[in-house]
Amino acid sequence: MGLKAALYNEIDVSARSSGVSRFNQIICAIIIFAVINAILETEQPLVDRHTRLFEVIEWSLFVVFAIEYCLRLYVAPLNPQFSGRYGRLRYIVSIWSIIDLLALLPFLLTAFGSTSFYLRAARLLRILRVARLGRFTSAWTVLGQAIGNRKFELMLGGLAALLLLLVSSTLLYIFEADGQPEAFGSIPRALWWSVATLTTVGYGDVTPASAAGRFFASLTAVAGIGLVAMPAGILAAAFSDAFQKQDPPTGD
Amino acid sequence: MGLKAALYNEIDVSARSSGVSRFNQIICAIIIFAVINAILETEQPLVDRHTRLFEVIEWSLFVVFAIEYCLRLYVAPLNPQFSGRYGRLRYIVSIWSIIDLLALLPFLLTAFGSTSFYLRAARLLRILRVARLGRFTSAWTVLGQAIGNRKFELMLGGLAALLLLLVSSTLLYIFEADGQPEAFGSIPRALWWSVATLTTVGYGDVTPASAAGRFFASLTAVAGIGLVAMPAGILAAAFSDAFQKQDPPTGD
Amino acid sequence: MGLKAALYNEIDVSARSSGVSRFNQIICAIIIFAVINAILETEQPLVDRHTRLFEVIEWSLFVVFAIEYCLRLYVAPLNPQFSGRYGRLRYIVSIWSIIDLLALLPFLLTAFGSTSFYLRAARLLRILRVARLGRFTSAWTVLGQAIGNRKFELMLGGLAALLLLLVSSTLLYIFEADGQPEAFGSIPRALWWSVATLTTVGYGDVTPASAAGRFFASLTAVAGIGLVAMPAGILAAAFSDAFQKQDPPTGD
Amino acid sequence: MGLKAALYNEIDVSARSSGVSRFNQIICAIIIFAVINAILETEQPLVDRHTRLFEVIEWSLFVVFAIEYCLRLYVAPLNPQFSGRYGRLRYIVSIWSIIDLLALLPFLLTAFGSTSFYLRAARLLRILRVARLGRFTSAWTVLGQAIGNRKFELMLGGLAALLLLLVSSTLLYIFEADGQPEAFGSIPRALWWSVATLTTVGYGDVTPASAAGRFFASLTAVAGIGLVAMPAGILAAAFSDAFQKQDPPTGD
Repeated sequence: MGLKAALYNEIDVSARSSGVSRFNQIICAIIIFAVINAILETEQPLVDRHTRLFEVIEWSLFVVFAIEYCLRLYVAPLNPQFSGRYGRLRYIVSIWSIIDLLALLPFLLTAFGSTSFYLRAARLLRILRVARLGRFTSAWTVLGQAIGNRKFELMLGGLAALLLLLVSSTLLYIFEADGQPEAFGSIPRALWWSVATLTTVGYGDVTPASAAGRFFASLTAVAGIGLVAMPAGILAAAFSDAFQKQDPPTGD
Repeated sequence: MGLKAALYNEIDVSARSSGVSRFNQIICAIIIFAVINAILETEQPLVDRHTRLFEVIEWSLFVVFAIEYCLRLYVAPLNPQFSGRYGRLRYIVSIWSIIDLLALLPFLLTAFGSTSFYLRAARLLRILRVARLGRFTSAWTVLGQAIGNRKFELMLGGLAALLLLLVSSTLLYIFEADGQPEAFGSIPRALWWSVATLTTVGYGDVTPASAAGRFFASLTAVAGIGLVAMPAGILAAAFSDAFQKQDPPTGD
Repeated sequence: MGLKAALYNEIDVSARSSGVSRFNQIICAIIIFAVINAILETEQPLVDRHTRLFEVIEWSLFVVFAIEYCLRLYVAPLNPQFSGRYGRLRYIVSIWSIIDLLALLPFLLTAFGSTSFYLRAARLLRILRVARLGRFTSAWTVLGQAIGNRKFELMLGGLAALLLLLVSSTLLYIFEADGQPEAFGSIPRALWWSVATLTTVGYGDVTPASAAGRFFASLTAVAGIGLVAMPAGILAAAFSDAFQKQDPPTGD
Repeated sequence: MGLKAALYNEIDVSARSSGVSRFNQIICAIIIFAVINAILETEQPLVDRHTRLFEVIEWSLFVVFAIEYCLRLYVAPLNPQFSGRYGRLRYIVSIWSIIDLLALLPFLLTAFGSTSFYLRAARLLRILRVARLGRFTSAWTVLGQAIGNRKFELMLGGLAALLLLLVSSTLLYIFEADGQPEAFGSIPRALWWSVATLTTVGYGDVTPASAAGRFFASLTAVAGIGLVAMPAGILAAAFSDAFQKQDPPTGD
């Protein structure tokens, strides 16, 4: 077996029927490290103290991910999916390859030092590198199928929740708009309160003050339990089914 | 097939055994647009900036819904349910026809420009147009049956929750009335706190301050988990059963 | 059938194999009315405005419940359980009869007009009249059995929750006591925050401010989901089982 | 049967196939008392008032636990697991024996009277004595197995929750950093809000104020219901299965 074939076996995720190769395990670890690094980088005082360290880390990550990208591109034609004429080109435009390439971009945005909105948005890209981890597991397919199987139930549950959201925010708008125009002066404003109440998050930054408002708020909170429980129950059942099919518990 | 019969096939929901006709799909889209429009209209600054646009939209919606109403009335007698003598009259007083007619009313209330309580209440009608969407799906029947099947369990769960609500608000009233007369000075006032705690929403706008009050509040929060979980579990199971009967998941 | 036998059939709950007699339905309605009245009576401004009305209602309720008590006592010996020598005496000391008698007491406490702590506590008795409704249904037995069947699981779940409560409040006490002595200065104080977090109520009146405190608070919130879900899941399953045995859903 | 054998039967947990001996029941009660004592001791005003009492209790507990430790060490060789040469030594380094020994340490730390951070951390040891209760029940093994059986599902659910946590805190950081630099000025800061929202605890000490921030906060709250429900559902099912295997409900 030549070096290229050995490299392919080590690098390509689909080359093995099960398990993750040492090379890909290391890449996973580096990705997780890169994401943690990207999170810490948003804390300005930390960056100011260790500017040089963060720069070195960023450049090292760029080099590692660039080499990884080149290696994957090099061995791609050995994968039956990308063999033949234009195989490497087809690999470049495949979904995972594009995500890998996007993961290289954030380094170019490091040059800017301002903390403006656009730079912050660019940093999102650096954190979304975490999506690359998806390449190394087929588990998400299971999750996707589980949700797909109960699409109809979930849609109906979501619709009922939306309706409840609409009615409750309208009622609160009707009874609280006079007293608290800032928080309940229009239905879009009242929606913020409705979402927080129906999901039982309940921030408490905005709460009804009138008797009628509180009465309908109570109904909303109670009704929310039922309607929120519905998608939760469906999802729980769906995931449970899907997991059991793929990997039955040892205890049975 | 004459024009009237073709129109009937396209317009009447019960004319087809399954699926929704192109005409009704468009009506659904317009209803959703109308509801979003009604929501945005409550945001006064937005209305002030685009007064003319909102007026045009309102009038267009009125014309579209009026034409739709007339068309449905025209083809109604082809439906076996409304055939024969007085068929059209029976259609006019049917539940869905009345809802369609009510959906036309809000336009007459647009003339008023004040933001008084009554106008706000009238706007509710405009948002309840969303109920018209119910005409195009039989799914709600399934939901209704699922709830109906477990009526007894739900009633008992609701009763237990009510009792817990009553006892916890009485206890908080006893121990907190002296310290916080505004929030816990009577049982109806303490109920606001009880609802927020038992549903685990927990706004935090009103919280017990005394040691005894906090002790019973803790018991309420813990007990609430159990009693709130009960209806949630029953509903989840009931909906899950009902959905599975109507549309078994593909994965099985 | 003599008058006494007819009265017995109408009044005694166990005289009929199923259903609730007209007499008992009316008593149920009066009890609910009495509880609502007791709730409203705690709202002082309302009482000040309608002092006379509340007095009349209280006296009427006293008369009705007194007559009911005498009637039940009169027909008690016809019930095989209380027949024979001392049957009526045994009825008087039975649990439901004592509850009925307690329901008469609150009227004697109405004379006092002060809003002191003891009067408020006495009012609890008036609201607990709601417990008398339990006489008219056997459903609580089902609930009790369902909980009894899973005693062991619930105890273990409760123990795990208690442990988590203890550890989380100790950790928060360690890291937050310096910064917020009022809220986290001792473990009993930190428990208030722990209960609100583990039950996901989350009032927000007390929140950790230090980085370490927030880290352990996050772990508490996440761990709480799992441990809180356990008793909830067990209870839901237990109730669902119990209900299904007693009254299988029509749809099956 | 000699005194040593009788002592062994009374003291060693594994000497009996089922049930807990009188001696161990008393030790359990003392442990619970010791933990409650340790909790109350953190309330400084209480300690100041009853300094002498707390000292006596601490010394009594030390003596009792020391005697218990010696007794267990004395009878250990009768347990087949610790028989033979070096049996007693192997007992000393066994996990439960080390925990028993650790439970003796806290008394030495009582001498210090300051309320410094290190003393508070030391008190944690005193409260962790509660872990000794684990010696007297095999129930935790069941819990551990139940969690172990669904390791894969729980890991995946946890990963999905982590991802959601990451994305939501990044989005809130992007849209709220300008308006609220203290609360959302970096991703680690925004994480505090994200955890409180995704677990539906919702303290409300930190909430988004901009329209975009509230929009993504709403999505977070809704998405959180689904992803939080997943591990909850899995755990509930796993525990329910495990309990049912060990101790099937009487009602079946």
